Amino acid sequence: MNHATQILLSLFVVFVAAQIGAELAQRLKLPAVVGEIAAGCVVGTSVLGWLKINEPLEVLAEIGAVLLLFSVGLETRVGDLKRVGKAATLVGVLGVVVPFILGAAWAHFSGFPTPKAMFVAAAFVATSAGITARVLQDLGMLNRTASRVILGAAVIDDILAMLLLGVVTALQSGKGVDVAQILIVLVQAVGFVTIIALVGTKIMRRSSAALEAPISPHSPLSICLALCLGLAVAASYLGLAAIIGAFLAGMVAAETQQRHTLEKQLQPIMAFLVPFFFVVTGAQVNLKELASFPVFVSLVVITILAAVGKLIGCGLGARSLGKQNALIVGVGMIPRGEVGIIVASLGKQAKVFNETTYALIIAMSLLTSVIAPPLLGKLLKNAPPEESDPDFEPSFLHHVDESGNG
Amino acid sequence: MNHATQILLSLFVVFVAAQIGAELAQRLKLPAVVGEIAAGCVVGTSVLGWLKINEPLEVLAEIGAVLLLFSVGLETRVGDLKRVGKAATLVGVLGVVVPFILGAAWAHFSGFPTPKAMFVAAAFVATSAGITARVLQDLGMLNRTASRVILGAAVIDDILAMLLLGVVTALQSGKGVDVAQILIVLVQAVGFVTIIALVGTKIMRRSSAALEAPISPHSPLSICLALCLGLAVAASYLGLAAIIGAFLAGMVAAETQQRHTLEKQLQPIMAFLVPFFFVVTGAQVNLKELASFPVFVSLVVITILAAVGKLIGCGLGARSLGKQNALIVGVGMIPRGEVGIIVASLGKQAKVFNETTYALIIAMSLLTSVIAPPLLGKLLKNAPPEESDPDFEPSFLHHVDESGNG
Repeated sequence: MNHATQILLSLFVVFVAAQIGAELAQRLKLPAVVGEIAAGCVVGTSVLGWLKINEPLEVLAEIGAVLLLFSVGLETRVGDLKRVGKAATLVGVLGVVVPFILGAAWAHFSGFPTPKAMFVAAAFVATSAGITARVLQDLGMLNRTASRVILGAAVIDDILAMLLLGVVTALQSGKGVDVAQILIVLVQAVGFVTIIALVGTKIMRRSSAALEAPISPHSPLSICLALCLGLAVAASYLGLAAIIGAFLAGMVAAETQQRHTLEKQLQPIMAFLVPFFFVVTGAQVNLKELASFPVFVSLVVITILAAVGKLIGCGLGARSLGKQNALIVGVGMIPRGEVGIIVASLGKQAKVFNETTYALIIAMSLLTSVIAPPLLGKLLKNAPPEESDPDFEPSFLHHVDESGNG
Repeated sequence: MNHATQILLSLFVVFVAAQIGAELAQRLKLPAVVGEIAAGCVVGTSVLGWLKINEPLEVLAEIGAVLLLFSVGLETRVGDLKRVGKAATLVGVLGVVVPFILGAAWAHFSGFPTPKAMFVAAAFVATSAGITARVLQDLGMLNRTASRVILGAAVIDDILAMLLLGVVTALQSGKGVDVAQILIVLVQAVGFVTIIALVGTKIMRRSSAALEAPISPHSPLSICLALCLGLAVAASYLGLAAIIGAFLAGMVAAETQQRHTLEKQLQPIMAFLVPFFFVVTGAQVNLKELASFPVFVSLVVITILAAVGKLIGCGLGARSLGKQNALIVGVGMIPRGEVGIIVASLGKQAKVFNETTYALIIAMSLLTSVIAPPLLGKLLKNAPPEESDPDFEPSFLHHVDESGNG
């Protein structure tokens, strides 16, 4: 078989594996993502060995991650973020701080040097808004107060995680922990994110009407894809993760009048390319690494730490909502997903993580995504019905409206 | 700048160049394809040098070509092909034979050995159905008899060109011209195409209802994309061009009940990926190769041969329609495009074509696509209005119906 045929065959294997994995996961009531990564593990080197990772596959996976974060950004509106109340901010911030501390502590006591430990801790941080949103949507619970807080907090959480990721990546690529350097990196990251998020969205809001002009049938999509690739390059050039740029591009695109059209057009592109990210991620996991007893214990420990971190951090943040709602918020924030996995693959690329750490983090992300949805479903079904008056707004959510559902 | 950033930057450059090129071309009333290839020439090595072709870009370009031919297949229904009349078949066949002979003659007298000459001649053959269809559509002329014949013939032409491409590719990779080998290749190619086109479509027609089941929101799209990649691999494995498999997959997918949904979902995927094919194609053209006087003369000669070949072949095929309509059909079949360019890039890959031949064939494909649309527009505007009764069916088009517009 010649080289071109082999490359095509690897694309086919990845794509089909993703479909089968997603299908099986959905039948088991698990998130599709879990199935896609598991399918990657199966076709990858550690089990069937059908898939050798080549550079084109890596680039396709990167494009998939970029598109995925672009779409997450597209669901994030700066206005909603500003309007979202104190509770969501508190949940978001504490939900980052507590798991980060727990993660860093674990990494420290497991013998990681400081910059690596911070990188590991960054993988503990980001809630997968997508998984929780799907569970809430399936149960028809998106209008509950707790759900609004979860989704608002997940956005803040994502941004903080991105920022954190930018900082730890840049730190890692440097020579060590240098306060001046940390500050420069932080200022650069915060500056880039702030300028794009505030100024970029403002410009887009004002010039959105210009995009309306029917220059060509796909113009708004093409312009936004170009923006997405462009900001990904810019972020990558600044030493941030490319996906941070893509996320910001999504936030900017969310300000256009064609936002909903864009979301719709993005669906098939993502259906084609995002599976490459998850399958390639899974294929790089060496399952044999998890087979030893001490590693298995580590996996249990970090999964518990990751879950408890969110439960405590977010639960504390949401305590003004009452005990039951605080519990719902805490459980709703447990799933890690895309972002944790992206952190893991960046760590592997940058050679910060060895095979074992990489396998551990991916497995932890998967496990949190697997345990949270059924728990959340149970809690929500047992919760007393809430006044579903659409005008009902608890004091801390003064300005949240329908579009605040992220 | 690190490697990952460079790759992302090359994706950004390709995508933006494509958008600008397409935009400019459309303002100049030229097909977008022409602009995208020209943009590739500009950012490529011979002018600005912003783009170095790397393997991931080549794979993205290949995926673009595969998706493009899948979509062409999706507009092709086996039933319509069977129903399309004698005239369209005659136009299609003569429109392949005459340009092939002229191309082979030119290549022979230019000193190419026989298998290479046949490869060159294959690039003279395929009409770009897309370009002509767009011109006819823009003028609201899709219902004219001549238009129906053109579109029917373009499909037959595409299939013959694919078949021819399969044969010449396989021949080229072999040791020379061996009648037994030609026969084996021919049987293999015809067998593969026939089995997929006839049996595959029949199976798909019968099982289409099963696809209707709402397994997941993107199921039909995902299944068809998997089919597309799978048949591309199969074709490539058999020594045919991967795009032939994709084209056949498109024909099979055209039999599903979700055909129109698929076409719609494919639009944004193509908007993202197909430009990679055209820009990468353009970027590989070394414009300096065309700068010498003898090469320029060759370009003029092969462009004239390519145009005259279609004019004579297709005009003869359509002579039963009357002189004016025969002329319209002849001119409508002139544009080469995707397929000619695909032949050129396959030839370059297989090292059959040197830089000069490659540049010549791309330039010829572009020129035919540039000259035909205005000529066709003029002819159609001056043509007497035709009875537009939808039931009007000239004798040779007994069974053509609305869906025959392909």
